[in-house]
Amino acid sequence: MSSLIEPRVLKGFRDFLPDQELRRRAIEKRLARTFESFGFVPIDTPIIEYTEVLLGKGGGETDKQIYRFNDHGNRDVSLRYDLTVPFARFMAAHVSELYLPFKRYHMAKVFRGENTQRGRYREFIQCDFDIVGVDSATSDFEILETMYRSFQALEVGDVTIRLSHRGLFNRLLASLGVDSATAEVLRIVDKLGKVGEEKVRTMLAELLSEQAVETVLEFIKPEGEFIPTLEKMEKLAGGPGEDSDRVRTIYSLIQGTGLAASFRLDPSITRGLDYYTGIVYETFLNALPDIGSVCSGGRYNNLASLYTKQELPGVGSSIGLDRLTAALDEIGEATETEGPVKVLILMQDEQLAAHYYTIAARFRESGLSCEVYPESKKLAAQFSYAEKKRIPIGIICGQDEYSRGTLNVRDLRSRESFNDLSLDTGIEQIRNLL
Amino acid sequence: MSSLIEPRVLKGFRDFLPDQELRRRAIEKRLARTFESFGFVPIDTPIIEYTEVLLGKGGGETDKQIYRFNDHGNRDVSLRYDLTVPFARFMAAHVSELYLPFKRYHMAKVFRGENTQRGRYREFIQCDFDIVGVDSATSDFEILETMYRSFQALEVGDVTIRLSHRGLFNRLLASLGVDSATAEVLRIVDKLGKVGEEKVRTMLAELLSEQAVETVLEFIKPEGEFIPTLEKMEKLAGGPGEDSDRVRTIYSLIQGTGLAASFRLDPSITRGLDYYTGIVYETFLNALPDIGSVCSGGRYNNLASLYTKQELPGVGSSIGLDRLTAALDEIGEATETEGPVKVLILMQDEQLAAHYYTIAARFRESGLSCEVYPESKKLAAQFSYAEKKRIPIGIICGQDEYSRGTLNVRDLRSRESFNDLSLDTGIEQIRNLL
Repeated sequence: MSSLIEPRVLKGFRDFLPDQELRRRAIEKRLARTFESFGFVPIDTPIIEYTEVLLGKGGGETDKQIYRFNDHGNRDVSLRYDLTVPFARFMAAHVSELYLPFKRYHMAKVFRGENTQRGRYREFIQCDFDIVGVDSATSDFEILETMYRSFQALEVGDVTIRLSHRGLFNRLLASLGVDSATAEVLRIVDKLGKVGEEKVRTMLAELLSEQAVETVLEFIKPEGEFIPTLEKMEKLAGGPGEDSDRVRTIYSLIQGTGLAASFRLDPSITRGLDYYTGIVYETFLNALPDIGSVCSGGRYNNLASLYTKQELPGVGSSIGLDRLTAALDEIGEATETEGPVKVLILMQDEQLAAHYYTIAARFRESGLSCEVYPESKKLAAQFSYAEKKRIPIGIICGQDEYSRGTLNVRDLRSRESFNDLSLDTGIEQIRNLL
Repeated sequence: MSSLIEPRVLKGFRDFLPDQELRRRAIEKRLARTFESFGFVPIDTPIIEYTEVLLGKGGGETDKQIYRFNDHGNRDVSLRYDLTVPFARFMAAHVSELYLPFKRYHMAKVFRGENTQRGRYREFIQCDFDIVGVDSATSDFEILETMYRSFQALEVGDVTIRLSHRGLFNRLLASLGVDSATAEVLRIVDKLGKVGEEKVRTMLAELLSEQAVETVLEFIKPEGEFIPTLEKMEKLAGGPGEDSDRVRTIYSLIQGTGLAASFRLDPSITRGLDYYTGIVYETFLNALPDIGSVCSGGRYNNLASLYTKQELPGVGSSIGLDRLTAALDEIGEATETEGPVKVLILMQDEQLAAHYYTIAARFRESGLSCEVYPESKKLAAQFSYAEKKRIPIGIICGQDEYSRGTLNVRDLRSRESFNDLSLDTGIEQIRNLL
C-alpha cells in the first residue's frame, strides 16, 4: 500500500464543520435580510484578478500580504485581499449598466498572508455594504441605521456606534500648521483605545509642538454628550463648517428616529486610512467592548479614481464576520440546541423501505425536514446516530404498524412515545413536540 | 492626473451584477432547502490547500489546469479544482469528530485554468452532495431521490435520470477478456451520446476484437423498459450478481415511491472516471436534453484512501450550477419581474427626512423592504431610480400629508395613486397591490 498523505490544511486556513457552517450561514442570512430590507443588492466579483487592478499604486502592508502568482498564460494575478478594491473596479466597469445611487452588499472570502500568531486567519470572510453616487447626510445616516439594525437582527444586545468626521480633524491640524504629518497623526490617534493617552502623547510629541500635542489631546477627548462634544470640536477646528453642519444634520436624524442612545460622537475615531474624507465610525458591542470594533467605515469622496474619471462619492461599512462570530460565541447568543433535521425514520425492516421513503416525502411536503436511516442496522446504532446529529424525533414503523396504516412517534429527547398514529395525526403530534 | 488602470477582469472570470447574483442566490437557496429537508448538512473547506493534498497521485488533465504557486512561506499550494478531493481530505481529518453515515452538501467556487473558447469559466460554482459511510441500495436511492426533488424545487419541468452500474459493465468486459483496456473502453462508451454509435464502434475496434465490439455495443443499447434492459445486461455480464441485485432493489424503491416515470436504466452511462465502483447516473432536462447532463455522480467504495486507512464508501452527485443557470435562462423559468426592494419613500422635503426614515422602519417591521431616496432631487430623477431598480411602490409625503399624519401610496407600475392614507392603511394598501 502506498504511503498516506497527511490530511492537513494550511496554517491560517480552516474547515467549517456542519455546526460552524450552519452558524455562519445563519449569521449571513440575517445580515442579508437586513441589507435587502434597506434596498441593498448583492454582487460578487472574481477571487482572482489582475495584480495591477488589485494593487493599484500599491505600497504598504498589503503588498507583502497579497497572494500573488503567474497564471497559465503567465499573467501577473493575485487573490483579492479585501472587497473594497474589487468594488471600485466593479463600479468603474459597470456604472453605465447600473443606476446611481447604487447600494450594494458583498459577503465573501478574502485572502491575506498575515502573521497567524495573532489569531488571524489567512482566508476570512468580509461583509461590506456601501451607498455610492451620493454625498448627503441622509445617506450617511442610512449606513449608520443599517449598521444599527444589522446588530439588532443578530440579537447581540445593545451596541454603541462611535462616530467622528475627518473634515473637523483635518481643519484642526491645518490650524496647528500640521501638514505633511497629517496622516501620521491620524494613525497615532487611531491607536488611542489600544495604547492609552500617555503613549499617544509621547508619539505625537515626536511630530508636533508641545502645545499642538495638548490641543490634539483636548480635541479627541469626548465630552459625553453629542452636541457639547461637537461644539468643542467645532471651536477648536476654527468654527462652524460644512463638516460640523453635516454631523449636526446626521445627529438630528439619529435623534428624530429614536436611535440616539446607541450613538456617540467620539473625536478620537479616525480610521487610519487616507481614503476617508467625511464621517468615520466604529461599532462596539456593549457586552464585549474590549474585543474592539466589529463594524467600521466612513465616507470617501472618490471610490474608483484609479479606474475611471467619473467621480463616485460614497459611504460604506465593513463587518468582520470572524471577530463577530467569536463575539457571538462569547456572549452565548441563542445557539440552536436542535440539529438541522427534525425527523429520523428508523430502518426497522428493509422490506418496508419504499414505505419509509414515501412517508418521508409526506413529512417534507408538510415542511418537516426528514431522513430515513440508510441501512438496516440495530436500532441502538440508529438511535445513536440520531443523538449525534441531534435529531429530536424518531419514527418507528414495523410490519404491524404498516399493516394497520399507522406509525409510532418517539420524542428522542424525552424518550416519550406516541404509538399507532395515522400519518396525519403523527405530523400533528410532531409539530406539537417541536 | 496619473493614467487610469483598465477595470478589466481576467478571461474566464466574471462579475455577478445584482440581478445575476440574486438569481444565483435564489437557485442555491432552493437547493440548500431541498438538501436540508433530506438531512444533508453544509460544510466548507479552504480555497487554498497544499498541492500534495489536492493532486494526490496526480496525473491527467487536472495537473495542467490547476492554479498552483508558492505562498509566502514558500509552500507549494494550489486552488481547489473540485469539491470531491477537499471532501475526501475533510473526511479523513474529521471522521472521528463526526458521525457515520455522514450526509453533506457543499456549494462553492472552484478554479480550473481551462480553455475558455469552449464557453467554460475558470472560476465556477459547484454543488456536491454525498452520503458517506454506508453501502446500501437505500442510500443509492436516497441520492437519486434528492436529485429528483432538487430539480422539482427548481421548477425546471420533468427530468430524466439515466443510471447504470459499473459492476455489470466490468463483469461484461472481464468475460470478454478485456483487462488493461477496461478504463479506456469505459471512456469511449461514455462518449456515445456525443459522437454516436459508429464512431464508438471505430474507437472500440482499436482495442477489442470485432466480436467483443459488437457485444459491447449490444450491451450498451437500452431496451426501453427498465427490467428488460437489466435482464439483458445481466445475461451478457454472465448472470445475476450483487450488482444486478442492487439495481433491482433500487428500482423497486423508485417504483414503490412513485418515481419510475423519471428514471431509465441506460447501460451506456459509464462516467469515465476510474473512481466509481457501483451505480452511476446522469440527469437530463426533458425540455433541453441537448445541453447534456446537469447533475451526475455515482457510488465509490473508498472516498479517502489517499489520506486514511479507514474505508469510507459513499454515493454522491454534483450539479454544475453554471450549465443549470444557462438552462434555466433558456427554459425561461419564472424570472422575477419585480426588483429586490418593494417600497421607495421619495425625498420630497429634506426637512421631513427623520419622518421618512421613521416610516421606513415601520414598513420594514411589517415585512416590507423599503428604502428612502438618499438625497433631495427632482421627483422625476427619483422616479427614474425606482424604475431602473424595478421598485413597484412609491410613497410620497409632503408637509401637508405630514401635518395630517398621512401619506400617499403610488403604484409605480400602473401609476395609480392612493392618497391621504394613514400609515397602517398605507401598509395594507401596499400589501394588496403587491
